[in-house]
Amino acid sequence: MNMNALKAQRGKPIGVSVAIIGLGLIGGSLAKAVRTHTNHHIIGFDLQKDVMTSALSEGVIDEAPERIEETLGKSDIVFLCLYPFETVEFVKQHYNDFKEGSIVTDTAGLKSEIVQFYSKLTHNAKGIDFVGGHPIAGSEKSGFSNSSDQFFVGASYVLTPHRGNRASSIEQLTALIQKIGFSSVTCMEAGVHDEMIAYTSHLPHIIASLLLKNKPNAEVNSLVGGSFRDATRVGNMNLALWTELLMCNQFNVIKILESFETEIKAVQVALKNQNVDDLSGLISFK
Amino acid sequence: MNMNALKAQRGKPIGVSVAIIGLGLIGGSLAKAVRTHTNHHIIGFDLQKDVMTSALSEGVIDEAPERIEETLGKSDIVFLCLYPFETVEFVKQHYNDFKEGSIVTDTAGLKSEIVQFYSKLTHNAKGIDFVGGHPIAGSEKSGFSNSSDQFFVGASYVLTPHRGNRASSIEQLTALIQKIGFSSVTCMEAGVHDEMIAYTSHLPHIIASLLLKNKPNAEVNSLVGGSFRDATRVGNMNLALWTELLMCNQFNVIKILESFETEIKAVQVALKNQNVDDLSGLISFK
Repeated sequence: MNMNALKAQRGKPIGVSVAIIGLGLIGGSLAKAVRTHTNHHIIGFDLQKDVMTSALSEGVIDEAPERIEETLGKSDIVFLCLYPFETVEFVKQHYNDFKEGSIVTDTAGLKSEIVQFYSKLTHNAKGIDFVGGHPIAGSEKSGFSNSSDQFFVGASYVLTPHRGNRASSIEQLTALIQKIGFSSVTCMEAGVHDEMIAYTSHLPHIIASLLLKNKPNAEVNSLVGGSFRDATRVGNMNLALWTELLMCNQFNVIKILESFETEIKAVQVALKNQNVDDLSGLISFK
Repeated sequence: MNMNALKAQRGKPIGVSVAIIGLGLIGGSLAKAVRTHTNHHIIGFDLQKDVMTSALSEGVIDEAPERIEETLGKSDIVFLCLYPFETVEFVKQHYNDFKEGSIVTDTAGLKSEIVQFYSKLTHNAKGIDFVGGHPIAGSEKSGFSNSSDQFFVGASYVLTPHRGNRASSIEQLTALIQKIGFSSVTCMEAGVHDEMIAYTSHLPHIIASLLLKNKPNAEVNSLVGGSFRDATRVGNMNLALWTELLMCNQFNVIKILESFETEIKAVQVALKNQNVDDLSGLISFK
């Protein structure tokens, strides 16, 4: 959809000012979705100047201040779309730049450390509310050029509030998230998020990369059907991001790998013993 | 596409008579694809009378003889679309019923035992040529009602000939297979097929079922994204067929599971040692 046409059609922005910090795949898609579904004023920031220029000329964002302080100072809701490590660093560095009473939320794939850090910032003088969040969507592609206002359609969004968060912030974020195309918003504890994400995302990504990497030879391609294609779709992933995610979630990932290894072993034993009932029990979903 | 309309439009069948034995997902889809792409006479057989009636009334097959002997006796090319165990049994039982000079091929997912059996039938008095084959396509759904003439579009087909097969049979089968929508036909040794299919199909199926089966709880659903959905698509599989396939390919599957387990272990070690380079090397596709 042409964002400039949309923008022109809508006229003057109303409601809150939304800042998107980091216009990669996630940030770019969020900006486009906010543009498509709301009339909010959108401010964008990215370290790559050409990305800011594209986002501005394509009508995805309304404003691209040169200085990050200016961006943060006038934004009611800030989405930090950065790598996990960068998120905490960014907040530390720009703590004094956020607008009074604003809501700052991040989209990093791991929540425990970040939310623990946020909880220490509660009761700050300016009433800035830091809320952890994670849009459950990803791709083997990255960058603004691959972003889309359709990227989150049907995806779920998880918020990981801490005790110090204002109920009104959670309500406001939830309303916005639902408006821009997500199918559901769920609140859970950061620790629970990290434990479960190891199962639903980290494990499938590890498996996909191992399957892809260890493919015996080119001849095998004629034997590749849907099951292999599906199982390896995410295998060629953003290595910098994934190495960081897995390392940060070390203990949960190790636990899930150990339990998966046990299952794999049990299948081997059933096969060795030619025990049809055991095998059937292990691979039966019902 | 309406098969009856297609049939009427084409007029009298020409060329060879093709028999499809077993009108399940694979047999039904083959029959529909042969109908859509050729003007061959199609004879169908299934132990379930209602399936035969449907296939006949829908125009998918031209003929549904009551007796299997009659079906086999007048078919130039016979596709056996049965479970692996049934395939050998079927050929043993109906060895004398096939037409002189006909080509008999099967679609079972494992080839070594079947092709070894076929090779002993070479130089039979009636010149029947038994050729192993495997359409590389499957689904978590089964049965004639889920079959489609589009099911094989873009899929590859592997033939596993033995020394006694006639070159002309391979050529004739290859031509037919290419005509009905498969993207490629590859010939390989039965043993190589079984070793490699353990990697490209059996391993992803085992993984998918284990992932699906061991999902911690319902709460986890809000954390399910594309990677988990893709990795588990085939997890809810036809259990009777799959238990048989895995058991029959026991040694290859055990070998592949062992090697996969080693990889999983290496990832754990890299995580435990916080060795970023090792982890990156293990999950990097490039």
